[in-house]
Amino acid sequence: MSTAAVFSLDAWSRTQLSLVEDALSAWVTADALPGRAWGAPADLVQAMRYAVLDGGKRLRPLLVMAAFEAVAVPGAFAARNAALRAACAVELIHAYSLVHDDMPCMDNDVLRRGKPTVHVQFGEAAALLAGDALQALAFELLTPADAEVPLALQGRLCGLLARAAGSTGMAGGQAIDLASVAHALDEQALRHMHQLKTGALLQASVMLGAACGMADEQAQQALSRFGQALGLAFQVVDDVLDVTADSATLGKTAGKDADHDKPTYVSLMGLERSRRYAQDLRDQAHAALAESALPQTAALAALADMVVHRRH
Amino acid sequence: MSTAAVFSLDAWSRTQLSLVEDALSAWVTADALPGRAWGAPADLVQAMRYAVLDGGKRLRPLLVMAAFEAVAVPGAFAARNAALRAACAVELIHAYSLVHDDMPCMDNDVLRRGKPTVHVQFGEAAALLAGDALQALAFELLTPADAEVPLALQGRLCGLLARAAGSTGMAGGQAIDLASVAHALDEQALRHMHQLKTGALLQASVMLGAACGMADEQAQQALSRFGQALGLAFQVVDDVLDVTADSATLGKTAGKDADHDKPTYVSLMGLERSRRYAQDLRDQAHAALAESALPQTAALAALADMVVHRRH
Repeated sequence: MSTAAVFSLDAWSRTQLSLVEDALSAWVTADALPGRAWGAPADLVQAMRYAVLDGGKRLRPLLVMAAFEAVAVPGAFAARNAALRAACAVELIHAYSLVHDDMPCMDNDVLRRGKPTVHVQFGEAAALLAGDALQALAFELLTPADAEVPLALQGRLCGLLARAAGSTGMAGGQAIDLASVAHALDEQALRHMHQLKTGALLQASVMLGAACGMADEQAQQALSRFGQALGLAFQVVDDVLDVTADSATLGKTAGKDADHDKPTYVSLMGLERSRRYAQDLRDQAHAALAESALPQTAALAALADMVVHRRH
Repeated sequence: MSTAAVFSLDAWSRTQLSLVEDALSAWVTADALPGRAWGAPADLVQAMRYAVLDGGKRLRPLLVMAAFEAVAVPGAFAARNAALRAACAVELIHAYSLVHDDMPCMDNDVLRRGKPTVHVQFGEAAALLAGDALQALAFELLTPADAEVPLALQGRLCGLLARAAGSTGMAGGQAIDLASVAHALDEQALRHMHQLKTGALLQASVMLGAACGMADEQAQQALSRFGQALGLAFQVVDDVLDVTADSATLGKTAGKDADHDKPTYVSLMGLERSRRYAQDLRDQAHAALAESALPQTAALAALADMVVHRRH
């Protein structure tokens, strides 16, 4: 494909991430934004900003923006604002899950993205509340008081995000993960756990972008398959990196899953088969893009490659 | 008012609560509801149901249904389903906040509604996740996959609930509360804290019901003032009961706020002035209803009386 040949993921990502970082910084704020009766408490916002800003690969926001670009009619500025809101909302859900996941009663992790975790920095109670508030803020971002996002689209976006975040999505996957420590999971059970824990939100990122771009049914179905394959690939590669990379490269504690006796793809199918499986999933993601019949899928394709070939 | 004279809050509440309890039991479920790709993990749902079912005064759901009845066109069945969803959604937010608030890093409470708190019963990690999943489920309830709630109304309801739950609402109020232990707050700061911590969600309950019933602007503004007065009255009475009632009657630990050296209306203005203030707020709520020019406000009026005259 000639478009893929000239597409630079680095340059595209820099442009998108600059928009996303600015928007996150503007929206995770103590200010009385439109639709708010007053501002938010400064202490709480400080912990929320610490959890969200200046960190992370921002894979989920990039997936939202890439899926939006794949389906959007050029020049649809209002819809692009909706996509930017969705990109930030999904990152807020991801960020809150990390804050709660790091807490002593969960993974009890002290290091995240090379910095002290939120409860280490601000205390456990503040971390709990900051996570709770970040989840609510995600839905606030999707429902602006002005007409920036049409009300019907607001409803659709909230529905997608709620299902990806809740008991049949991320929180559900974490509950299975919690119950599975030191238990043998077969491949099907492991896949289901990851489909919920990380897959649902990654897939939802793609579907949120597609919804903002008003994708037709055929494109939606193909992008849903793309998101599912990418979500699985992400976790398989995560498990591989947990045993092959060091903590400094990862920016978090390496070897954690093996230490905690958690089931992983590597423990289940070995390192080499896990690597081949990730490559298969990358191919499935590309095949889904081809089936979508969408012209502008270079960013999505490059993101799938990045997920499989990343080193951290 | 002759309608108020014949209105029985007990009978009306029994009818509404029967609908709400059945709906909560049906929706807080491991089943693959419409719009879900699969069911939720049984362990997680068990903790969520424990947190939500068979307990509480259900004041927030009753406010949603009462506000809906005040503004709704008789026979609007579809809108009544939306109101029932909103009633359950707001109760899920309330329930999640109690689960997280009871945790050791927050209030460290072991008794709630006469039962062991969720983290005592299921462990801290499960309590954290159950609370997180309940918040997401609230937004899932507001965004049904079938056409039971019009998409534009879904967006509006999610926006109201997100703002009431988040950093400028309930979570924000809890953060101020946390920071205010052993600090002197003046009356204005105390009122602002409660406006966020409990007032925002109570007021939102009224506004959610009004939105489902398609209230006009005049009615919305009057109901907003009603909800604000009722929300404040609720907290003033809570503070009064904390020093005048015993734990058995309250179903939770009495005297907790005084023990923790938390600022309350009673510590600030004394018991008698607090009681008079609650009565003033009840009168303000009734005045707002009169200004609404709505004919069917008997349930809202009775709920305002109940809030001020309750014994637990």
